Amino acid sequence: MSTKHFFPATEGVVVLALESLVIRNSHLELDAPNKVVYSKTHHPSKVTVISGGGSGHEPAWSGYVGDGMLAAAVNGDVFASPATKQIMAAINHVPSDAGIILCITNYTGDNLHFGLAREKAAGMGHKVAILRMTDDVALGRKQTENTGRRGLAANMFVLKLCGSAAEDGYDFEKCLKIGESVNANAVTVGSSLDHCHIPGREHHRSVPEDAYVLGMGIHNEPGLHEKSPIPPVEEIVEDMLKYCLDPSDKDRAFVDFRPDDVVCLLINNFGGMSNLEIEALTTVSRKVLDKQWQITPKRIYAQCFETSLNAPGWSISLLNVSGIERETNTSLHTLLHLLDRDTTAPAWPRNGYREVKVPKRRAESHTNSTSETAAQKGPKVDPTALESALRRACDEAVKAEPDITKWDIQMGDGDCGEAVEGMCKGVLKKLDAGLCKNGALFHVLDEVESAVEEIGGTLGAIISIVLASYTSNLRLAYAKDEDGFQMDINSAGQAAGQALKNLMGYTSARQGGRTVMDTLIPFCETLEKESDFSKAVEAAERGAKSTSGMKAKFGRATYVGEQSADTEHDAPPDPGAMAAAIFLRGLLDGMNQE
Amino acid sequence: MSTKHFFPATEGVVVLALESLVIRNSHLELDAPNKVVYSKTHHPSKVTVISGGGSGHEPAWSGYVGDGMLAAAVNGDVFASPATKQIMAAINHVPSDAGIILCITNYTGDNLHFGLAREKAAGMGHKVAILRMTDDVALGRKQTENTGRRGLAANMFVLKLCGSAAEDGYDFEKCLKIGESVNANAVTVGSSLDHCHIPGREHHRSVPEDAYVLGMGIHNEPGLHEKSPIPPVEEIVEDMLKYCLDPSDKDRAFVDFRPDDVVCLLINNFGGMSNLEIEALTTVSRKVLDKQWQITPKRIYAQCFETSLNAPGWSISLLNVSGIERETNTSLHTLLHLLDRDTTAPAWPRNGYREVKVPKRRAESHTNSTSETAAQKGPKVDPTALESALRRACDEAVKAEPDITKWDIQMGDGDCGEAVEGMCKGVLKKLDAGLCKNGALFHVLDEVESAVEEIGGTLGAIISIVLASYTSNLRLAYAKDEDGFQMDINSAGQAAGQALKNLMGYTSARQGGRTVMDTLIPFCETLEKESDFSKAVEAAERGAKSTSGMKAKFGRATYVGEQSADTEHDAPPDPGAMAAAIFLRGLLDGMNQE
Repeated sequence: MSTKHFFPATEGVVVLALESLVIRNSHLELDAPNKVVYSKTHHPSKVTVISGGGSGHEPAWSGYVGDGMLAAAVNGDVFASPATKQIMAAINHVPSDAGIILCITNYTGDNLHFGLAREKAAGMGHKVAILRMTDDVALGRKQTENTGRRGLAANMFVLKLCGSAAEDGYDFEKCLKIGESVNANAVTVGSSLDHCHIPGREHHRSVPEDAYVLGMGIHNEPGLHEKSPIPPVEEIVEDMLKYCLDPSDKDRAFVDFRPDDVVCLLINNFGGMSNLEIEALTTVSRKVLDKQWQITPKRIYAQCFETSLNAPGWSISLLNVSGIERETNTSLHTLLHLLDRDTTAPAWPRNGYREVKVPKRRAESHTNSTSETAAQKGPKVDPTALESALRRACDEAVKAEPDITKWDIQMGDGDCGEAVEGMCKGVLKKLDAGLCKNGALFHVLDEVESAVEEIGGTLGAIISIVLASYTSNLRLAYAKDEDGFQMDINSAGQAAGQALKNLMGYTSARQGGRTVMDTLIPFCETLEKESDFSKAVEAAERGAKSTSGMKAKFGRATYVGEQSADTEHDAPPDPGAMAAAIFLRGLLDGMNQE
Repeated sequence: MSTKHFFPATEGVVVLALESLVIRNSHLELDAPNKVVYSKTHHPSKVTVISGGGSGHEPAWSGYVGDGMLAAAVNGDVFASPATKQIMAAINHVPSDAGIILCITNYTGDNLHFGLAREKAAGMGHKVAILRMTDDVALGRKQTENTGRRGLAANMFVLKLCGSAAEDGYDFEKCLKIGESVNANAVTVGSSLDHCHIPGREHHRSVPEDAYVLGMGIHNEPGLHEKSPIPPVEEIVEDMLKYCLDPSDKDRAFVDFRPDDVVCLLINNFGGMSNLEIEALTTVSRKVLDKQWQITPKRIYAQCFETSLNAPGWSISLLNVSGIERETNTSLHTLLHLLDRDTTAPAWPRNGYREVKVPKRRAESHTNSTSETAAQKGPKVDPTALESALRRACDEAVKAEPDITKWDIQMGDGDCGEAVEGMCKGVLKKLDAGLCKNGALFHVLDEVESAVEEIGGTLGAIISIVLASYTSNLRLAYAKDEDGFQMDINSAGQAAGQALKNLMGYTSARQGGRTVMDTLIPFCETLEKESDFSKAVEAAERGAKSTSGMKAKFGRATYVGEQSADTEHDAPPDPGAMAAAIFLRGLLDGMNQE
């Protein structure tokens, strides 16, 4: 991750961040001095669920405030527990006649400050309990016998189910029982490529370039093992899942997973991983779960749930829903409902698991029009002339390959000649197989266009567009008036003119830019205006030859800055422009030769 | 951002990522060979909106597929346009009788491939249009006259409004008109601290440590200006907004913002910024908009909308909704409805702008119980004895300050003595002001507890907890039977025993761990069992002295690894444990002295 930041230090940043969250969610209110975000819509007849802890874990905790999750969240400074006074303020903002549950992550400071708040609130007459969230499995029973385990991203399962239960009107004892059972049936293990960086602080020791850390937490604590070299991602996931699931790991095996248990998977981005990688890691995790543990998660969640600022790491959490069912006598159906239940908490993912209705009627399928018969539709032309023209065009372009390659090597990467040659040989093969035998012009044009696409790059795309557009325009004219339509030089010219206009919408290249447009523009324009194929080909040839000594003007480099290539006065002609002109001349000659 | 990755290269990663998205959203389907994500629920009677482009911008584009946004998204490889064949596949998956709009980001490859697809689809009889999204304002009119401007995060406004209009059954022309007007009324400018890193590729040149780039795009293109040193964040935002809004910038001023126009703000995380910073930047942007441009956004959105893998950058987008109203004759009300309209697209943020109902009935307020009169409630004790005991305890602890400090310097940071002294002096001041004059025991205990909190750290928290819990337990016993309650050594012992039990739930420290627990545990246990204050104080003193030479066992370091401090055979007693014992002895002596 970056050690650079837009904010030079963390002072004041937490309140600025909370302001942003609250202003764009009408159900939220901010008590800025106490860094408490609370729900305006929490009903005091329902159990109040409150969570909190240090900041730097956004969207935890305040992103989970809303109907069906938290009534309030208390935020400390970055990676520091909130003070008791702040927690008391939260309790006072969302009091409840039904009782208050404080869900905490079992770090020393949180235990003490939330503990003190509980004692004080109890003295004030509140019914209030602390629910410790302890899903980390990086350390086993021996190492955690004094302090207990840490809370990591499976916390979100506790907040969601406990909050849903409260929203559904469950009483205090039932909410607490469900919450505790969720925690008892959840496991999490993290992995990271590095620590996070806190604005304004010294960078924590970096993890070496060729290593990753297994069992990483979310406060830059040292992890369990530093592993080097970084193994293939499947192996990393296998390792991580072993910590979560291996029943023979007597120091762990914190949760009893039985065959056919209903399990949910939650993937948490520590904050610095790209979304692309986190989504891909989710799939890898799913596949390893299936292959090695025969577990198919019933629900999958993947996003930033509980971050470590910008750390390039992630964690896997598993929840055994069947385990909760066994412990709490709450049906699987109800537990999944509590998970899926809608919430206004902004950071809970949209519920993607509701059943969908697939509309029965599909649009009139247009795909058929590419089927053999539909494609063959349209005017028939003289098969012999058509074949002769195409053969000659392809032969000439193949013959020109050495020249095209030579020109391209001087200014480009030298693959243009081969690409054009390959395309032409493909068309020749189709001709050998009888492409033209029915004289179905549109079908032949489709086939040539699809061969041109194989050229690839900008050249292939541009010629494909003009050809496809030309064909489409002919097709539309034909469809309008099947009987009256004449396939002659006039209709060809009109279609070419329209095709050029369309093409110019897709590329900014124009004449004088040293591209195939120097051939296509004069060709199409002349064909449209003069209705004379021979004159159009001559115009195309003049255009192609004019690219000699011309400076390139178009391409991605021109988006930003003035970094166009140096003028090359002795530059050869543009190979693409020449290839197109040669092909067109071939068409003309082949047509006349017949 | 990190140049380390869990995936060593991008091969295969895009499909893995799409699989993850699709499996957790029941309305989505994946055509893996074509990297097309499409909606199973799109109705062919509604206009089809399709978008797409290179991958590496997740959640763009596939995260926006769902009712009310896209019917399908086509994904290329990382930062590469999808091929025409893929786009045709998307069109075939979600055909429409009403027409198809292809929303593209105006990069060369996208223009050509989507352009070819449009031409082919038109030839097949589809009604199909291309909508170019061009919101970037980094470059002005002159530099972009050839290529047009780039599409950046305000694209999301186009997809949302166009998709909503389609879902609401608007016809093709109206959807297209709204979409084009949204684009014409949207501006975006990006800033970044560095480029992103693509797995398996050479790292793009890093931006120097003390610089940031204004006008950064999302494909590692060079930005407009590299600025060094990095100015305060408000200045960066001011600069960025000038590019978006300044009407005197004749080369820009792409959108006409008039006074009182309704404007929306969208903040996009390029992927590598912590959520904490991106939220805080949102607030800074809102404040600068208000102060310098008198713009109060009607809607604010902030998250990863269109990323550049893990780049530590962000962008500001503004949408002038009033401008769309003027251009399209669509009412503001309708346009905001289209923005707010629910969608099943997983990446569109939850709509936080719906009106909320605030429940009228509040829970019986417990805050009153801390008010003067309520706090004074409870048994009255002899004011003189109470004051004498507290005075003596505080005096003794103040006298012991040099010793406490000395012990703390040997093993800790040396601030324990001063903290205890400060707390005691605070209590003495309250005594001077007549704290004990009514003999209202609970009130006095509350005040002492609140003074103890000021000690801070673990010591302050632990003593506060035991004291608050002790007071709460007495209060609960009193509330149960106001008339029968006796404030004597028996009730004190029971409350102390319960308080200790509660405390032990919040800390893992036990006897033998060199903490204040070495004093508190024997004190409370003895008081409970023997009902003898004198014996309890003796036990407390023995416990405190036993910490001499004891090894520290508890604290955050013990969460991970075996890194406890070295045994210190000649260690002094624990300063906190001693301070507590001295205070308790003072209480006893003061009580007897009276």
